[in-house]
Amino acid sequence: MQDQRGLKVINLLSGGLDSSTLLAWAVSQGYEVTALSFDYGQRHNRELESAKKIARYYKVDHNIMKLDLRSIGGSALTDNIEIPDYGMEEIGKEIPVTYVPARNTILLSIALGLAEVKGAKKILIGANSIDYSGYPDCRPEYFKAINEAFRLGTKRGVEGDPIEVEAPLLHMTKSDIVILGSRLGLPFELTWSCYRGGGKACGRCDSCKLRLKGFMEAGLTDPLEYEEYPEFYKEYLKIRGK
Amino acid sequence: MQDQRGLKVINLLSGGLDSSTLLAWAVSQGYEVTALSFDYGQRHNRELESAKKIARYYKVDHNIMKLDLRSIGGSALTDNIEIPDYGMEEIGKEIPVTYVPARNTILLSIALGLAEVKGAKKILIGANSIDYSGYPDCRPEYFKAINEAFRLGTKRGVEGDPIEVEAPLLHMTKSDIVILGSRLGLPFELTWSCYRGGGKACGRCDSCKLRLKGFMEAGLTDPLEYEEYPEFYKEYLKIRGK
Repeated sequence: MQDQRGLKVINLLSGGLDSSTLLAWAVSQGYEVTALSFDYGQRHNRELESAKKIARYYKVDHNIMKLDLRSIGGSALTDNIEIPDYGMEEIGKEIPVTYVPARNTILLSIALGLAEVKGAKKILIGANSIDYSGYPDCRPEYFKAINEAFRLGTKRGVEGDPIEVEAPLLHMTKSDIVILGSRLGLPFELTWSCYRGGGKACGRCDSCKLRLKGFMEAGLTDPLEYEEYPEFYKEYLKIRGK
Repeated sequence: MQDQRGLKVINLLSGGLDSSTLLAWAVSQGYEVTALSFDYGQRHNRELESAKKIARYYKVDHNIMKLDLRSIGGSALTDNIEIPDYGMEEIGKEIPVTYVPARNTILLSIALGLAEVKGAKKILIGANSIDYSGYPDCRPEYFKAINEAFRLGTKRGVEGDPIEVEAPLLHMTKSDIVILGSRLGLPFELTWSCYRGGGKACGRCDSCKLRLKGFMEAGLTDPLEYEEYPEFYKEYLKIRGK
């Protein structure tokens, strides 16, 4: 395990499974972490509550920035567009209505400003290009390009000490991420992945399904409560005798 | 003159000389313009008032987005850092304290989201690499890189119809911009460039000095009121017999 003691990083933290696992990993590496979350008018505000709990659990600085993406609109996550129930075979095939226009670019840009002020060396983002929802701003070629733009567009970059965007989970499957989180002792029950913001996770949106598939393939069970489990997960629980 | 009738563009509008001239130009080209301004806790809020006046004058849609960059900090434009009086010979030599970390990147990213939702073809920004203050995110190589990142990071880009960032004033001198604005009938008295937000422009910050130098080299006089004129402009007025 590398020791990054004292190296400052900004960790984008939504409160979901991926960014929470990433934060647990960054802390385990010895990074000095500032978590950055956004209150962007997301319908699933429960996620933001999870971000607060995770940051408190790991005792890291937490910067929550208000950002009214609703005034931009255009996504089922911020607007009154119906969140679809996906079949597993449809996930990742096309860009879904939950895509928030330019979201990662906006969040990374603000993280870039914060990193420059805080003297942080890196921005960590929990993006994932394997078991993902087909968002264009989660692809490796996108991260390569944004790093180049950030290098050229900042004082730090001009001075030869660029701030790097890293997506350590980029090539991991959801089950890899669950296994990593489990190994690091991440309290999964504090995280939140569901696109619907109810009392229990819905178990029907693509985010719930990807999460449960990840737990299943990792041979673990998700401690979160669900309104209903998808068929594949019911089968899985039956096989495990639960 | 090209006719761009009906082509939608997002025009970043600070209310300063450059972005106001750009908007006058975009309207003259027949673009269907949505002006986008940010209330980012800038000390010179007078600028935002100018943006509103310019958008009203040209009868274009105006989207004002609240964005609390003060929670990032690190700039004389948003923090309690003293705004320096610059000598003309110092301007552009190094990155000044008025640099807002990652500002253009943040503003362009949000414009990108809005462009995607509105179906806009371009984002117009009044950045300038000649008579400028030495900000890294005003350089041509930066714009090239950000366009590539935007292409790769959006649904529109993936679908082969990328949203393009254009900086039509990039290679113009300040006096070129004044001449263009003048030719287009821009009401210069509605614009605001001063970094200090008083009743009159200060005439001492680098932004005031660059503006006055532009008017001087264009052979015109600035209708704005100033607390005091810099020496070179006093000389110029004397020569013009004012």
